[in-house]
Amino acid sequence: MGAHDCVHRRAVLVALLASTAGTIPFSGQPALAQGDPLPSWNDGQPKQSILSFVAAVTREGSPDFVHVPQRIVTFDNDGTLWCEQPMYVQLAFALDRVKALAPLHPEWKEKQPFKAVLDDDMKSLAEAGERGLVELVMVSHAGMTAGEFAKIVKDWLSTARHPKFNRPYTDLVYQPMLELLAYLRANSFKTFIVSGGGIEFMRPWSDPIYGVPPEQVVGSSIKTRFQMRDDIPVLFRLPEMNFVDDGPGKPVGINEHIGQRPIAAFGNSDGDFEMLQWATKTGARRLGLLVHHTDGEREYAYDRQSQFGRLDKALDIAALNHWTVASMKDDWKRIFKFQ
Amino acid sequence: MGAHDCVHRRAVLVALLASTAGTIPFSGQPALAQGDPLPSWNDGQPKQSILSFVAAVTREGSPDFVHVPQRIVTFDNDGTLWCEQPMYVQLAFALDRVKALAPLHPEWKEKQPFKAVLDDDMKSLAEAGERGLVELVMVSHAGMTAGEFAKIVKDWLSTARHPKFNRPYTDLVYQPMLELLAYLRANSFKTFIVSGGGIEFMRPWSDPIYGVPPEQVVGSSIKTRFQMRDDIPVLFRLPEMNFVDDGPGKPVGINEHIGQRPIAAFGNSDGDFEMLQWATKTGARRLGLLVHHTDGEREYAYDRQSQFGRLDKALDIAALNHWTVASMKDDWKRIFKFQ
Repeated sequence: MGAHDCVHRRAVLVALLASTAGTIPFSGQPALAQGDPLPSWNDGQPKQSILSFVAAVTREGSPDFVHVPQRIVTFDNDGTLWCEQPMYVQLAFALDRVKALAPLHPEWKEKQPFKAVLDDDMKSLAEAGERGLVELVMVSHAGMTAGEFAKIVKDWLSTARHPKFNRPYTDLVYQPMLELLAYLRANSFKTFIVSGGGIEFMRPWSDPIYGVPPEQVVGSSIKTRFQMRDDIPVLFRLPEMNFVDDGPGKPVGINEHIGQRPIAAFGNSDGDFEMLQWATKTGARRLGLLVHHTDGEREYAYDRQSQFGRLDKALDIAALNHWTVASMKDDWKRIFKFQ
Repeated sequence: MGAHDCVHRRAVLVALLASTAGTIPFSGQPALAQGDPLPSWNDGQPKQSILSFVAAVTREGSPDFVHVPQRIVTFDNDGTLWCEQPMYVQLAFALDRVKALAPLHPEWKEKQPFKAVLDDDMKSLAEAGERGLVELVMVSHAGMTAGEFAKIVKDWLSTARHPKFNRPYTDLVYQPMLELLAYLRANSFKTFIVSGGGIEFMRPWSDPIYGVPPEQVVGSSIKTRFQMRDDIPVLFRLPEMNFVDDGPGKPVGINEHIGQRPIAAFGNSDGDFEMLQWATKTGARRLGLLVHHTDGEREYAYDRQSQFGRLDKALDIAALNHWTVASMKDDWKRIFKFQ
């Protein structure tokens, strides 16, 4: 796909859109025919590149036409579909979980990284590094059955509140992205989540919140073991990493779970770099889009220096790769439904 | 689910079916309303238990009703959907592949297990054991990109012939099971393959042959690594096992890929034992079905002693678990489409 093609197609699309008030019927574009499918997106290059891409790959006879079974699209979760500041939601869950389990582990009062969690000492926690984080994840995510863990996650989400917005975390999903998910599905795309976060942390709520069923969620995982307990089969969660679905792991996870290459990918950080490469660098017309966190007032403003969701090399190379960069401040009319 | 319930429901269903010639409309059962959805199945207990199960879980108001998003069903592949004798098709592929690569490896002439393959010496090959097999799988399945491997598989399937039937292996899929897959999909079930075989060996042909898209195939896998080659992204296949989707690995693979528990599972060997336990031992109405290879004339007759697809402990416990056992000889009008 060349930049010239993009411009040309956009012009064609704008002309077509302008005529929808008239009598020309649109085939295969039900969402377009019923008014603006992306009302929370300001008119601008990102919105136009989405509309233009969808029109190009869904219009029969188009040189870029893609058959329905190959209309696979992948979305990162943290920072792309919902808020990832001041820390990943799953990390907030792990910290709360450690606090909830602390009475059973009196030794944690003197043992890092648990002591840091119990003391709300974020500096010591950061010093514990990745190894400390893995330890926290294991005690909070392993040692129970898959069914028990799903219940723990749902119970936590029903009571936990985001520190800045004082709302349930599931309220902090991006309205423009919900519209995008629905718009793509209305055009027969199959929407997948491909996240560095835990696969079993997302599945209990991905369908009600995003309309993405459990089988279309890809993520990091720990190992599980099948066991019969009193003649009841369970999957027991072990304190051992299975797969890290981040960075170069995302194309690997996509191939393993989906077995097809996405034709569009949506991310917001360097952890999505390889996923966007995998989706877009094919020679055919593809769409890569980065959400750029530019709105410190309505959400958070961060990119190159951020501890969570760092966007640096992917931002540098976006233009060269014809990736669209959507500025939350400029391109989104609203960020959350409640705003 | 109790056996009495089954009998009762079957009686109800038969009564309902008998009335379809009249004016009572069936809701949500388009396949039933249009005549026999399983024409290659003889009337008998297995066919009735399938019809009765589908009616019970799809009829609104039924105490066993299951909503569409939870209508997940899993099928083993080798010996359940297609022929696995005189050896797994994937093993025949590996042996042919070793022969094709032999000119590049003159040392194989004197080195086991390769020598055994080149000499068609099945006895020495068997003596090489699992370790020898893994070695064969690695040289035949690793060392190329995912895209290259898919092409190798498709090319091989287009020329290889089954030694007994002298037909392409993809002709050796079981017609009654194709009807069952279609019948379940017509009733809004989502059909998955969950096989001990290689996930990337099945995906190139699962959709055209079974109507199961790549993202609904679960299987064993080797590790892959994401690489950029001359600015082109590839997934390179490494000679290292990633996951063995067999026996107790099947519920693990199901949980990882699907994230939901199937409400019905279909297998034919002890490798499917835990998958059927996982699907059926829930307290709710579920269906487990074993294909029993009893037809030495039209296919092969084997169970407890077989090298491939051994069916022993699962057969012993089938009745206790209310699993249906379908005899290929007695319950299938025909086995292959060409017969």
